[in-house]
Amino acid sequence: MGRDERGVTPQSEDFSAWYNELVAKAQLVDRGPAKGTMVIRPYGYRLWELLQGELDWRIKDTGHENAYFPLLIPESYLQREAQHVEGFSPELAVVTHAGGKELEEPLIVRPTSETIIGEMMAKWISSHRDLPLLLNQWANVVRWEMRPRMFLRTTEFLWQEGHTAHADRDDAMRETMLALDLYAEVARDIAALPVVPGEKTAGERFAGAERTFTIEAMMRDGKALQAGTSHYMGTNFAEAFDIRYTAETGRQETCHTTSWGMSTRMIGGVIMTHGDDKGLVLPPRLAPHQVVIVPIGRGDEVPAAARDLAGRLRAAGVRVHVDDRAHLSPGYRFNDWELRGVPVRLELGPRDLESGTVVMVKRLGDEGKQPIPLDSSAEVLPGVLDDFQAFLLRRATEFRDAHTRAAGDWGSFTDAVASGWALAPHCGEPACEGDIKAETGATPRCVPLDGAAETGVCVRCGRPAAYGKRVVFGRSY
Amino acid sequence: MGRDERGVTPQSEDFSAWYNELVAKAQLVDRGPAKGTMVIRPYGYRLWELLQGELDWRIKDTGHENAYFPLLIPESYLQREAQHVEGFSPELAVVTHAGGKELEEPLIVRPTSETIIGEMMAKWISSHRDLPLLLNQWANVVRWEMRPRMFLRTTEFLWQEGHTAHADRDDAMRETMLALDLYAEVARDIAALPVVPGEKTAGERFAGAERTFTIEAMMRDGKALQAGTSHYMGTNFAEAFDIRYTAETGRQETCHTTSWGMSTRMIGGVIMTHGDDKGLVLPPRLAPHQVVIVPIGRGDEVPAAARDLAGRLRAAGVRVHVDDRAHLSPGYRFNDWELRGVPVRLELGPRDLESGTVVMVKRLGDEGKQPIPLDSSAEVLPGVLDDFQAFLLRRATEFRDAHTRAAGDWGSFTDAVASGWALAPHCGEPACEGDIKAETGATPRCVPLDGAAETGVCVRCGRPAAYGKRVVFGRSY
Repeated sequence: MGRDERGVTPQSEDFSAWYNELVAKAQLVDRGPAKGTMVIRPYGYRLWELLQGELDWRIKDTGHENAYFPLLIPESYLQREAQHVEGFSPELAVVTHAGGKELEEPLIVRPTSETIIGEMMAKWISSHRDLPLLLNQWANVVRWEMRPRMFLRTTEFLWQEGHTAHADRDDAMRETMLALDLYAEVARDIAALPVVPGEKTAGERFAGAERTFTIEAMMRDGKALQAGTSHYMGTNFAEAFDIRYTAETGRQETCHTTSWGMSTRMIGGVIMTHGDDKGLVLPPRLAPHQVVIVPIGRGDEVPAAARDLAGRLRAAGVRVHVDDRAHLSPGYRFNDWELRGVPVRLELGPRDLESGTVVMVKRLGDEGKQPIPLDSSAEVLPGVLDDFQAFLLRRATEFRDAHTRAAGDWGSFTDAVASGWALAPHCGEPACEGDIKAETGATPRCVPLDGAAETGVCVRCGRPAAYGKRVVFGRSY
Repeated sequence: MGRDERGVTPQSEDFSAWYNELVAKAQLVDRGPAKGTMVIRPYGYRLWELLQGELDWRIKDTGHENAYFPLLIPESYLQREAQHVEGFSPELAVVTHAGGKELEEPLIVRPTSETIIGEMMAKWISSHRDLPLLLNQWANVVRWEMRPRMFLRTTEFLWQEGHTAHADRDDAMRETMLALDLYAEVARDIAALPVVPGEKTAGERFAGAERTFTIEAMMRDGKALQAGTSHYMGTNFAEAFDIRYTAETGRQETCHTTSWGMSTRMIGGVIMTHGDDKGLVLPPRLAPHQVVIVPIGRGDEVPAAARDLAGRLRAAGVRVHVDDRAHLSPGYRFNDWELRGVPVRLELGPRDLESGTVVMVKRLGDEGKQPIPLDSSAEVLPGVLDDFQAFLLRRATEFRDAHTRAAGDWGSFTDAVASGWALAPHCGEPACEGDIKAETGATPRCVPLDGAAETGVCVRCGRPAAYGKRVVFGRSY
């Protein structure tokens, strides 16, 4: 395989082609045989495991417990919440035959688990002492996808779905915002995505939710990616599934529920936020290999020194890989790890050994090749990785800010959403949202939580603006 | 809820009722709405997570990488390996409609992933340098179950499935035995199950395998449970899916593949090996709570001391839970944690505080209530838990040995399998296996790897014995 076979179309030429080629060539994924399905290869799955680990301990640390609910849900369950079934019907995969027979009632392959978890919650909750009930599930879900794109929209994807039940609205709203906070923290601190947390407008709410919150990330083509959502369901699902409790007063009350999810789509966000024409750029906290050591030249001395260095780095808490594929040229291996986004490469040859140094090359930056002392590299590298992590977040924040413009009139609005996001006053009417989308491709991404108070008139229709603050608009994935 | 509602039928009265009541009352599982499906509740799922963790690092440590393959498999894939499709056809769940339309080709909800992984391996392997390819997947699978039993046989279950490709038979057989070793290690060292590793007879092989190996555990009713299997596929799947490579010689060669799986069924094995009439007995290395502290009495002092003790135990690496449900009596809480199998309970009341002690009660054993000094309890408990773990393995080994008998004639054979296992010479003919099963309910569980060399005649038909050693027979789950 020569260099050309691994090269990818430049982002500036065709961002979409860049992405599709990169996820395949970096061996993150492959296409599955059923429409829109994806095979997550070891390098891509390791990214997911690392993200999972970061999210999972935070979920547990805030009092939630993991559980597992069945994949197959009776069709009638979905029909109990009217908006929910309407939202999901076009995307369902249906099992009609099993065990050699036609089923009396078809089973849905779960697109999300509100209904089956609602059914179980009703069984488990009887007293106020059973509340709050804080559950989370790591699972696969299936939503039939007509325009699939790896990680971003696939017929099957992996995610976690939190489902909680509470005594009242206040407690459920606290939970909704807590989950959003967890997502924002993981996105920023681990994935280096400077996400904007905010609330969805009525037209963009989850099917069955009373309020939907989101974290929105900006990709390097200026589009938005919804990277996690948290929903306050009110009593919609509790009414549909009869989730009730006896209060301290002795009265029967209806629970308020929430749900929230983050998925493998997040990996797509990492790729499109940090990647460049050479390939992936992975934030150290998510990188399967934070450091790759490439031993150069023949003989046993260099590989032995590389293994020794790797051992010391591992002991310092660094995820390190030694690329000892001696049948491949050093240049080939360098390019390979650039394509695969490893934050730091260490090149080690006989001359480096003689001088007691190793050559460090960061995946981004102007420093080029920097010799560092072999002896102190295990002390130096953790700091280099922390700096690289911070650099990625800073760079992405600057990019987002440079591509976000306040837009008070239609002309500046259309300009802004052509290459990034617009911050605009908006009436909040679904019909007006539809007009905006039809003309520009942009949709309201969220009403940002930290937006400054401002009144005004809708950038599109001139009616009074809603929400008391500007709305983020952008084209999206 | 009174004591009676939590009590379970004694094992001696009805082992099956004991099991079914216990898994529900200990809040491990609940029934799902679709036939044979199971909801794994937080306490049960935590057991699974701890087992997963122990198995996952061992799988990675031996060079395997995790990946994820699609849930939905085209029906035609399964038909490519004749024995495989024959073995699984009666158990398949079939998606015929998706995205609002009837599918051109039905999709199978994976019962196991040999076929789809075989298809991808063929794509990824071209040279001898790509071998061995060592993959593992954590996933849910669906096999339609007519006689479901929680954990043991459920329509959907969770498992890991290892799938590997090798250059030749020797390397694939080494892998097959390596996986079996990992399973035996986890079973013995973590789950405290004294499993017997061995090979399945021809009649009990996996559909499509050339050789199938198993670890067999004995339950407290004397029946056997297959707790993990490892298969050498020969070139069956490699031929069917065209998994080939160019050898160093330049010749095209066919790969040899393996697969191996361990599932949530293992949890059923833990319950039925260690549990008693009071409830679960969990091995400390799998117990969600290794120690539960029950503060007794009113006031703030005891709960504060309990939290302090919990902190010190946690710092000593112990998984500890404080049961501060003050609205429940101490006796109720004691019974509750006995039912749920917590290895060690610590009772802490005002008088204990005064004397600077805490009362330790182990889930099993003759020591009763033992006061131990509060100050040194964090140093003492880890050793107590290790001893308890060792005790469970020893007790289960003694039970197994006491219920396993060498049987050279038909009379002693039928006696042995009525209450446990028989070690018997056997001809190895499927027809003779069928006769044995029809008359006694027993099947050949395995030809034990460490069985002593012995020749003789079949305990049933008198023909010359095969395998050169005795075969383990038993009734099974």
